[in-house]
Amino acid sequence: MKHVLSVLVENKPGVLSRVTGLISRRGFNIESLSVGTTEDTTISRLTAVMDADDVAYEQITKQLHKLVSVHKISDLTDEGSIDRELALFKVNATPERRSEIIEIANIFRANIVDVGRNSLTIEVTGDESKLQGIEDLLRAYGIKEMVRTGMIAMSRSTKD
Amino acid sequence: MKHVLSVLVENKPGVLSRVTGLISRRGFNIESLSVGTTEDTTISRLTAVMDADDVAYEQITKQLHKLVSVHKISDLTDEGSIDRELALFKVNATPERRSEIIEIANIFRANIVDVGRNSLTIEVTGDESKLQGIEDLLRAYGIKEMVRTGMIAMSRSTKD
Repeated sequence: MKHVLSVLVENKPGVLSRVTGLISRRGFNIESLSVGTTEDTTISRLTAVMDADDVAYEQITKQLHKLVSVHKISDLTDEGSIDRELALFKVNATPERRSEIIEIANIFRANIVDVGRNSLTIEVTGDESKLQGIEDLLRAYGIKEMVRTGMIAMSRSTKD
Repeated sequence: MKHVLSVLVENKPGVLSRVTGLISRRGFNIESLSVGTTEDTTISRLTAVMDADDVAYEQITKQLHKLVSVHKISDLTDEGSIDRELALFKVNATPERRSEIIEIANIFRANIVDVGRNSLTIEVTGDESKLQGIEDLLRAYGIKEMVRTGMIAMSRSTKD
C-alpha cells in the first residue's frame, strides 16, 4: 500500500541520511522524496511516498519517533489531504508539431517554459493522476528528459 | 556557494541513503532535495541544492561517480538552467481578508487549492526568488503551514 509520510526534521547535516537510512535498512524503497525549508528556518519538512504494508509502516514511524532530530510525523496517506507534485518535461517538437503539444499543455493548464529548435519544455503541477495523464500523452512525441519533484502533501483545513 | 546537483540513480532501496550519507559525511547540509521518477522506471532523478565551495563540491561529485548505482551527474548550478519549485502555503484568512490574499495569489499566478473557515491554502510554482516573494507577502497574514518540494532543474534546449 502506498503511504505518504510527512516528517518535520532539524535542518542540519546528517539528519536526512539518518531518516532515509532507517527506511532503506528495512528494505523499503522510497518512491519519491521531497525535502524543503519550512516557515521555521531551523526545520525542514520531508515528504516521502513509499510502498509498505500497514505493519511495516507503523514500525518505520516508531523508529523515526526515536530519532532526536525528528520533531513531528504525520501520516498524509489519507484521501482527504492535498497532494501536489511538479514536473518538467522536455519533449521532441519539430516546428510543425509545436501547436499540437501546446494544445495538450493548455488542456492540463501546463506552462511552456522553454523552446528549442526541435523541443519544448513544459512545466506542470498536479496530483499523481494528472501528471500521469499528461506524461502518457507527451510520450507519443518522445520525452527527451523528465524531472519530477516528488509529492508534497498538506491536510485540508475543514476544521480551521 | 550554492550548487545544484542533478543525479540519475537506480530506483532501488538503499541508493538514496548512500547518496545523502556521502554528502552529509563531508559535513555539508543539503538545503533541499527532490527525488522523483523519470521516463525510465528503473531510474530516479535526484536534485540536491547545497552550499559548498567549488573544491568541496568537486570532491562530492568524484565520490558520487564511484557509486555503482549512480549513472549520471550533471551540474545545473549554471544560470542558464530552468529552476522550478512548488510550494503549498496554508495562511490565516478570516472571511473579510480573503479577497486581499486572493489578489496576492493572482499576482503570482498562484492557485487557491483549499478554503477553510479561517484559512486559505495556496499552491505556487516558480524559481527561488518568486517563492521568496510570495512567502514574504503571505507572512504578514500568518503562515500556519508551509511545504516546499525542493528545487528541480533542467538545462535549456538552446542547441537541440
